[in-house]
Amino acid sequence: MSRGRYAAPMSYADTLGMRVLEATPERTRVALTVTAGGLNMHGTAHGGLLFSLADEAFALISNLEAQAVAVEMHLSFFRAARQGDKLVAVATPERVGRTLATYRVEVRRGEDGEVLALFLGTVSRRERGKDRKALTL
Amino acid sequence: MSRGRYAAPMSYADTLGMRVLEATPERTRVALTVTAGGLNMHGTAHGGLLFSLADEAFALISNLEAQAVAVEMHLSFFRAARQGDKLVAVATPERVGRTLATYRVEVRRGEDGEVLALFLGTVSRRERGKDRKALTL
Amino acid sequence: MSRGRYAAPMSYADTLGMRVLEATPERTRVALTVTAGGLNMHGTAHGGLLFSLADEAFALISNLEAQAVAVEMHLSFFRAARQGDKLVAVATPERVGRTLATYRVEVRRGEDGEVLALFLGTVSRRERGKDRKALTL
Amino acid sequence: MSRGRYAAPMSYADTLGMRVLEATPERTRVALTVTAGGLNMHGTAHGGLLFSLADEAFALISNLEAQAVAVEMHLSFFRAARQGDKLVAVATPERVGRTLATYRVEVRRGEDGEVLALFLGTVSRRERGKDRKALTL
Repeated sequence: MSRGRYAAPMSYADTLGMRVLEATPERTRVALTVTAGGLNMHGTAHGGLLFSLADEAFALISNLEAQAVAVEMHLSFFRAARQGDKLVAVATPERVGRTLATYRVEVRRGEDGEVLALFLGTVSRRERGKDRKALTL
Repeated sequence: MSRGRYAAPMSYADTLGMRVLEATPERTRVALTVTAGGLNMHGTAHGGLLFSLADEAFALISNLEAQAVAVEMHLSFFRAARQGDKLVAVATPERVGRTLATYRVEVRRGEDGEVLALFLGTVSRRERGKDRKALTL
Repeated sequence: MSRGRYAAPMSYADTLGMRVLEATPERTRVALTVTAGGLNMHGTAHGGLLFSLADEAFALISNLEAQAVAVEMHLSFFRAARQGDKLVAVATPERVGRTLATYRVEVRRGEDGEVLALFLGTVSRRERGKDRKALTL
Repeated sequence: MSRGRYAAPMSYADTLGMRVLEATPERTRVALTVTAGGLNMHGTAHGGLLFSLADEAFALISNLEAQAVAVEMHLSFFRAARQGDKLVAVATPERVGRTLATYRVEVRRGEDGEVLALFLGTVSRRERGKDRKALTL
């Protein structure tokens, strides 16, 4: 959205203006600022925008030590976000097993602000280097 | 993403290139085509893109006859989408109550293609014209 | 609950008085009648009772052609069940993949009555006879 | 299940042998011991049993300061429970709003043991004494 006229967006995270703040197996944080291009019919941030931010933090943390594909996610909405809000998604592991792992992601207003949405997601995973077969659902 | 250089995106649905195909209380359909700007780190469509499309169909159908805000969603991923795929989200009601309603959304590859993701979402709702108080969670 | 005084319950399904009505890979139906021993603090059927019935139909259908363990479930409540109601859980496949499968279960009041609860569940699965390794999460 | 032959079960919690260990708006804990009558076809604790325990802790905590009815729940399974295991469900609030509230429930093996299942549930609620209208979905 904010990219120059010659640069094609390279990824969905770029398209939505996401910035990775931290990426470790214990905690991953990704941020974006809500622009006019992120609003829904009510004039607040689209649910898809909050989900996308949470999903990016989830994808990052789950792929740090494994090859992972998302199986399912649950999202609860608590409060609306507005244009200009800086949103930060903070992902932490709930349980990491051999073939499945579940992560919790909080979408907060600001670094330490209130929780706007709570995301829970599960991946099917294969630890890197252990098995070369393609990971499919 | 595909907008000209002078036109600011007007909404999240515009940003992602969504097009409403149908909008009735019985069925709502919304489409988009996966571009480079919708891809994740694996080179397939970002989970947030599929969710956002489903969420838009869900927002449309739930607001046709009521003022509705999302409470929670669940998304199951079945198959990956790729660049160039036309995705269609088809929303139908599971149960519409007085203050809560639940909808099912299938994200399909093409109009009648295979289901890539299954979304289930619940809104808190107020029927239009019945109560003027603001709807808050 | 309804078992004679000498017979120990043999399973959770027996404890709750479940009866299998149909069990095919395309559709599984399990029934129970709500007794006093199934009520919650509000005097209606406990959410756990409806979930348990749905979960049994889900376990049956997912294990007919594979060895399957539950990964996650989602349950939406639409209407309350009362003492004396005959509940029927009807499970059907949403998507059956090689290593994961998702099923939908409706909990109905009577054979063709209204839907009281909607269950969606995912299993990790291994097709029978293909791989002898223990299936673990 | 463990009740004498003349005493009818008074509730679902009694039927499954649940014991309330703690009940405050900040934390509710409910326990049960897995018996033969709680097992599934694989010989481990039925998913419905774990869900029911979590749901009871959720019902208790959500009704302490309000009249609450369950809207939806999500459950992730991490590890199996076996006959003889003492299970403890620990419920804590994620977010309590005026008309909706979301709670997290961990089902643990023993008081401080590993988490076997993670439950997230949302209620529709009315604060006590504020509004006498019946609470319906």
